[in-house]
Amino acid sequence: MPINHQILLDNRPTGEASTSNFKLVKNELPELKANQVLVRHDFLSLDPYMRGRMNDSKSYAVPQALGQVMGGGTVGQVLDSRSDKFHPGDKVVGMGGWQEYSIVDATQVGALRKVDTTHVALSHYLGAVGMPGVTAWYGLVKIIDPKAGQTLLVSAATGAVGSAFAALSKARGCRTVGIAGGPEKCAYAVNELGFDACVDYKLYQDAASLSAAIKLACPDGVDGYYENVGSMVLNAVMPCLNAFASIALCGMIAGYDGKPVPMSNPSLMLLSRLKIQGFIVSEHMDIWPEALAELGQLVATGKLKPRETVAMGLASAPEAFLGLLKGKNFGKQLVKLG
Amino acid sequence: MPINHQILLDNRPTGEASTSNFKLVKNELPELKANQVLVRHDFLSLDPYMRGRMNDSKSYAVPQALGQVMGGGTVGQVLDSRSDKFHPGDKVVGMGGWQEYSIVDATQVGALRKVDTTHVALSHYLGAVGMPGVTAWYGLVKIIDPKAGQTLLVSAATGAVGSAFAALSKARGCRTVGIAGGPEKCAYAVNELGFDACVDYKLYQDAASLSAAIKLACPDGVDGYYENVGSMVLNAVMPCLNAFASIALCGMIAGYDGKPVPMSNPSLMLLSRLKIQGFIVSEHMDIWPEALAELGQLVATGKLKPRETVAMGLASAPEAFLGLLKGKNFGKQLVKLG
Repeated sequence: MPINHQILLDNRPTGEASTSNFKLVKNELPELKANQVLVRHDFLSLDPYMRGRMNDSKSYAVPQALGQVMGGGTVGQVLDSRSDKFHPGDKVVGMGGWQEYSIVDATQVGALRKVDTTHVALSHYLGAVGMPGVTAWYGLVKIIDPKAGQTLLVSAATGAVGSAFAALSKARGCRTVGIAGGPEKCAYAVNELGFDACVDYKLYQDAASLSAAIKLACPDGVDGYYENVGSMVLNAVMPCLNAFASIALCGMIAGYDGKPVPMSNPSLMLLSRLKIQGFIVSEHMDIWPEALAELGQLVATGKLKPRETVAMGLASAPEAFLGLLKGKNFGKQLVKLG
Repeated sequence: MPINHQILLDNRPTGEASTSNFKLVKNELPELKANQVLVRHDFLSLDPYMRGRMNDSKSYAVPQALGQVMGGGTVGQVLDSRSDKFHPGDKVVGMGGWQEYSIVDATQVGALRKVDTTHVALSHYLGAVGMPGVTAWYGLVKIIDPKAGQTLLVSAATGAVGSAFAALSKARGCRTVGIAGGPEKCAYAVNELGFDACVDYKLYQDAASLSAAIKLACPDGVDGYYENVGSMVLNAVMPCLNAFASIALCGMIAGYDGKPVPMSNPSLMLLSRLKIQGFIVSEHMDIWPEALAELGQLVATGKLKPRETVAMGLASAPEAFLGLLKGKNFGKQLVKLG
């Protein structure tokens, strides 16, 4: 059997995460047992939620066990199978984690899913037509629930979630505005992702000046805000929200790595009669088929052109993950193996 | 026609409100015109929302105009009428404001409402069976939407809203816990208002120690929180909330008078997948009949025994109102006239 390189969580960060929290090891893969499937990973997914799992504290994600392979989404192909359900060559999505191969019990419902790469590239099943895309769909459709003509705003606009959000929002006839870091991301948001406008938060030193820029980009105010970031960006957005606006709270990446950043004026939640709702898409599995169908269609027809940042080789995963937490990626962050 | 004493908003507060913001004047009442009704006020209602109206800034309430009679709920009786709909002696609820008499146009829908004082004292139509009671009902039924056996928590527990909340919550089979200031209020909450427990926030210096006390009083965590206060209390409650808990955001009285108090750890909204919703009951008039029917029944059958703090005479209104903002009242704050 082949040698499998793996990255384990070796120790938990205190404050900012670093590469020393991880450890690269190798093991020979065991022989397959009945109903097991051997998958070779082509891509690993890196996602902000993983930072929460590195802590032992209360978090929406179960803590990642120390000394175990870092969990995470993977796409790849079946090399060998002792299950009738999967055959060598099948393209599959799973939760194989930060390693080159995984052995999956095919009797476990949902552990491995065959996908069709005719119209959608395999890697997109980790992004636009995977968990991040469904995450965008849930917050938009089930929390913001917009009407055509409304103005919707999303932070981390060029990320895997933000770019899917834009396509879904435009499909519903909404003016769609992004917040992203740097001129290159903002230009891409408008030119390639279909945003009507994009605000570069890096141009602003404080929440008040960022808020003024958002108001300029949203002359009719903001009816729905999809939050991936938190921190100063949330504080800047809140005064721009119209009465009865909704906030779909998907991520607060700015607070993941270190101290929480306060919400400066919570009374706006009352004054503007806001609805704010936090969610985790894995707790709403019932909506995945509907969401994936729409997202797959948007990608296949070119209405959603997801961008990817690809780190090469398993050993690059920790560095790429830390970059993701700082917004160094541009689009979906992946690690390509093999 | 009689002389009418009135209290006007003379100037707007900068920071803390004071009695110098108000001005007492007197005027002779004009003769009634067609369809007008003359009402003599027995009680004025003092409510926290009035503080927001004293500002000129963005607020959920339209700013109170300078030089005009302070707006507010009133109960009283009809003295004279040029409308077929009202007759001398009728007990009525209206929005007469801080003055001894009001002249109401009876053709204006909802401006004046006859009430039955057989089983419910007239003053309660400003509290438990009026706007504060309906406010409690809306947050409980439409936002928290609890299940029997859940634990619900309310701040300003002995106030007009909090005491109605307790009766409504107990009627739905929920463990009901209050937060109030001082041993007398806490004892009253448990002994007279039906709370299962009440935490005295004045015993705690910071959010962390108050949070520990709330956890002791809510061993199964908190499934729904009804917020009247904001500030340190909100920060103390947030870590006690169970996954998928709701916050009905009715008031943030602690922030009304001065600087906003930040929410210290907004990422808990995401980690606990909270739903937070701000509301104003006057924007949901459709639910008033159902709510008032239940509240009237609870008061008439003695299941809700609302307590009142009554200031005597119109001139006492400003001082009593400022006391309300500091929690000096015990139950519904009223001003008795005549």
